Amino acid sequence: MFNYNPGAQEPAATVKTSQGDYRVMVSRGAIEAIGPEMRQAGVNGRAFLIADYAMFPLLVRRAHEALERGGYETHALILELGEEAKTIATATKVYEWLAEQRAERTDCVVSMGGGVTSDLVGFAAATWLRGVPVVHVPTSLAAMVDASIGGKAAVNLPIGKNLVGAFKQPRLVIHDIDFLDTLPRRELAAGWAEAVKHALILDDDLLNTFETHAEDLAALSGDLVEPVIRRSVEIKAEIVSADEFETGNDRVLLNYGHTIGHAIEAVTEYGTYLHGEAVSIGMMVAAGISQRQGLISEELVDRQRTLLKRFELPVVLSDVDPDTLLEATTSDKKSRGGKIRWVLLRGPGRATTSRDVSTKVVRAALNDVLVS
Amino acid sequence: MFNYNPGAQEPAATVKTSQGDYRVMVSRGAIEAIGPEMRQAGVNGRAFLIADYAMFPLLVRRAHEALERGGYETHALILELGEEAKTIATATKVYEWLAEQRAERTDCVVSMGGGVTSDLVGFAAATWLRGVPVVHVPTSLAAMVDASIGGKAAVNLPIGKNLVGAFKQPRLVIHDIDFLDTLPRRELAAGWAEAVKHALILDDDLLNTFETHAEDLAALSGDLVEPVIRRSVEIKAEIVSADEFETGNDRVLLNYGHTIGHAIEAVTEYGTYLHGEAVSIGMMVAAGISQRQGLISEELVDRQRTLLKRFELPVVLSDVDPDTLLEATTSDKKSRGGKIRWVLLRGPGRATTSRDVSTKVVRAALNDVLVS
Repeated sequence: MFNYNPGAQEPAATVKTSQGDYRVMVSRGAIEAIGPEMRQAGVNGRAFLIADYAMFPLLVRRAHEALERGGYETHALILELGEEAKTIATATKVYEWLAEQRAERTDCVVSMGGGVTSDLVGFAAATWLRGVPVVHVPTSLAAMVDASIGGKAAVNLPIGKNLVGAFKQPRLVIHDIDFLDTLPRRELAAGWAEAVKHALILDDDLLNTFETHAEDLAALSGDLVEPVIRRSVEIKAEIVSADEFETGNDRVLLNYGHTIGHAIEAVTEYGTYLHGEAVSIGMMVAAGISQRQGLISEELVDRQRTLLKRFELPVVLSDVDPDTLLEATTSDKKSRGGKIRWVLLRGPGRATTSRDVSTKVVRAALNDVLVS
Repeated sequence: MFNYNPGAQEPAATVKTSQGDYRVMVSRGAIEAIGPEMRQAGVNGRAFLIADYAMFPLLVRRAHEALERGGYETHALILELGEEAKTIATATKVYEWLAEQRAERTDCVVSMGGGVTSDLVGFAAATWLRGVPVVHVPTSLAAMVDASIGGKAAVNLPIGKNLVGAFKQPRLVIHDIDFLDTLPRRELAAGWAEAVKHALILDDDLLNTFETHAEDLAALSGDLVEPVIRRSVEIKAEIVSADEFETGNDRVLLNYGHTIGHAIEAVTEYGTYLHGEAVSIGMMVAAGISQRQGLISEELVDRQRTLLKRFELPVVLSDVDPDTLLEATTSDKKSRGGKIRWVLLRGPGRATTSRDVSTKVVRAALNDVLVS
């Protein structure tokens, strides 16, 4: 008999939102406790598990069994959930399956996969019958420290990414560190990029920890993997709790490295760089701008570069035309009335925003990362 | 120069919701004031007017000019918005247009048309960039007293109606009574069915007014059209404010006549009856059940029938197999675990709900309205 007392487990964070508060559980083997955690979160009815094919069959079975053991009648749908599947057409497949299963408002949806999975399944859960509860079980490091927390759900249109979506807060998020053991090293590094970003913008102590233990963390060895992920989750949760709808000055800070990162992804047609890799290069450009604006020293730019390289993340960009890239930055969603709101560093663990950056400065910072 | 002081106009109701409070303005010529009203509601940016083709060109032009006069840069999209267009495919057309126009989160969407229009445009506004403000300008009586208030937005799937949607509260609702003058008489009657429903479930006084002035109201003549619509709007607004997400015991009362009504629409494949007409017949069945359950007298059933007939609404049903209809009621979204929650009358202007109704009683009440 499985014995588990939810009260005994400390969440890494509790996210406070207008749609309710929810816990983010982080540990090795966390999936085993999904049943009792869902009960504690007040989720009842049947569980509709929607998983990325990459999790099939082993990890899907573990989740399925844990849900059944928790007393949830469970049904599973396995889909190929790469970036190219993040469409209204795939959401419609989910709707059709839920319709066949006669899923009701009192039932719940459980997503299991990377960032595409939580984005797409979150959107489907936000809109099925005008909204049913969703629980996220992220299986990539990037999804753990970023996509699964904060309720941003969306699908892409041919004309642009994440254009159709919803703010759909989950009722619970389960991070099972075990799942990372089978993750390709390159994807792991892309996940660390987002965690390093959290340190750079908000937590000097975490930045020091990353610098002291980069190789161990990159290899998932040593005792610090779980505490570092917990701290990264905590930072993301604090920001989301303070600025749920990105209408204030907090949540935008998470876009550090993303203005150029998104542009890099767009001009390379999402085929060359993983999101975290593009963000890594984007952070180098943002740091270069920060330095040129007199906000930080060149030494901090170097510190950032060295750290990212130790995680085997790219810090330079080749075969990209700077004009095309600059053009792509202005079509980013975050620009309002043509003026880009840049997220810049003003010190280690401290970020700020500015709309007052000249094209000349951007171009110079960009030139620093371009190699031919 | 157009002069208008929003404070001087009294809204018919203010709807209080978790997404913010909003006013419902009801008057002849109300559209002229849409600009100042939107400013007062804090809506800025550009206005993206999405209108049913039936409103083109005359009424669309009036709205367009009123928006421009109010200082809103306005762009219009005209679509055929019949029930068959209430699909994800049509929503995608809206997304693509908004993408072409580079509509941003600070812009707003204005819907203009009947219930399909506010449902579909409301859904598109709920999901475009994870949500942009929406203002509804309903042009049918049914949309005025029902669909435009309360934030229920949705599209249909081939497998069922309203399966994909959102709770998306508008920032403002404008009822221009002038728009009703060109409405076909049959559609007008279908709208009155929902207003009469509000009286039957919640307002004995309004019921008396309907009984005293049925023919005048049906013909849109006399002085009572506006006050009666205002009162009906007020009832809907009170219910929505008390039970925004239909999780309590208030909002479900609005489904009086709808369990059978939806089933009638489904088995006749949405081709025979307008929604309000199906609800009219459904209310007769619900009244028949109420009487058989000992909740009301036969006299009240007769009163209801007489009133509906004076609005030229159908109160009997032909060419429908009772078993098929009964089967269709159990697939209605409102049933949970197979048990239908019936909305029943317990007096004039008073409603209640019950899951404890035998199939025998339903069948008997159904037989009363079936003619061969």
